[in-house]
Amino acid sequence: MTATRRVRLPPAERRAQLVALGREMLAERTLEELSIEEIADAAGVSRGLLFHYFSGKAEFALEVAKASAAELIERTEPSPDWDAEDALRFSVAAYVDYVAENPQSYVSLVRGAASGDDAVRAVHEATRTALADRTIGFVTRFGFELPATERLAVRGWIAFSEEVTVNWCTLPDDARPSRDELLDLLTNALPALVLGIPLAELRDDERLRSPGLK
Amino acid sequence: MTATRRVRLPPAERRAQLVALGREMLAERTLEELSIEEIADAAGVSRGLLFHYFSGKAEFALEVAKASAAELIERTEPSPDWDAEDALRFSVAAYVDYVAENPQSYVSLVRGAASGDDAVRAVHEATRTALADRTIGFVTRFGFELPATERLAVRGWIAFSEEVTVNWCTLPDDARPSRDELLDLLTNALPALVLGIPLAELRDDERLRSPGLK
Repeated sequence: MTATRRVRLPPAERRAQLVALGREMLAERTLEELSIEEIADAAGVSRGLLFHYFSGKAEFALEVAKASAAELIERTEPSPDWDAEDALRFSVAAYVDYVAENPQSYVSLVRGAASGDDAVRAVHEATRTALADRTIGFVTRFGFELPATERLAVRGWIAFSEEVTVNWCTLPDDARPSRDELLDLLTNALPALVLGIPLAELRDDERLRSPGLK
Repeated sequence: MTATRRVRLPPAERRAQLVALGREMLAERTLEELSIEEIADAAGVSRGLLFHYFSGKAEFALEVAKASAAELIERTEPSPDWDAEDALRFSVAAYVDYVAENPQSYVSLVRGAASGDDAVRAVHEATRTALADRTIGFVTRFGFELPATERLAVRGWIAFSEEVTVNWCTLPDDARPSRDELLDLLTNALPALVLGIPLAELRDDERLRSPGLK
């Protein structure tokens, strides 16, 4: 075996490797700018092998979007042992850091904004729904009621957080609020929107202090 | 002249008529489902004449998106004589009614979600910016300070309102909060998010009661 000889990988690993590579390449440019040839070259595989794993660029982009969404959901999952405020702040911080690490690929993939592809947009919708459902489950676990209007508000809070965070990333350094100010804004927004009370008042509520084991 | 003879219109009027027709047709289906032939047929003009006014379906869609966005911005403009709460509620109600009247075309056009077209997405971005800038101007006119973080929050509130309203439209009748509940949620969200205080408390602030003539 020589160093130039291509390494054989089991199909699932090869597929995962190609998707991981796609995510790296898309951190720096958009899907439109990327060709199948470049992806194959970077992976050290032939164009034909790439098509063996993915029917085309659209399927490849979809798998990259799914992997990004899965990582986002995993990274923002708080521990069930934490109290409500810690858990909320952890999720918000993990979300902000995820977006700040790769703003371009976040906008073009997870957000689905740069994609005219229905399947990629569906991944973004599903991600928003997963994050909203987790937040709803989390808030209700702490004993708060969430009628239909408040459930809508949780969904809106996800969109609020996306828009604020993506815009925050694009601000020039001297005009950008600090990361802590951003985290305060997003963290305070949830109880303000959903429960109609500022977080400072909510701190007196003992439900917020106990781990939400109902 | 017979009834079947096509009416001659000056170019600007004909163009406006075609755009208006496009908006009507898109209220019921997406741009992808619509062909240039159908648009020409419905307008009673030849395919060739349509191409005389628009270079293709992409330009036609862009003009339709611009017209929708302009109407949205115009309809949600409050009178400068109103006090802050009346003006906010008027804008929110006008926005909700606009979306509820044509949810599908709103989603596919103004929101740019169903479009992989950069120009159409730019119209949506510009619309969000126009609505956010107007709201920022409006809030500052009433004497409230808006540092960078609060300006981000206003932009986030626009995204919050979009997400909540679009989702509200899609809920089945028996699970949908009333229009008044929706208006309360959106109206209360702005001061809660941007100023960190519930609207009920803000009502004691005399700035809110005076027409904002500074």
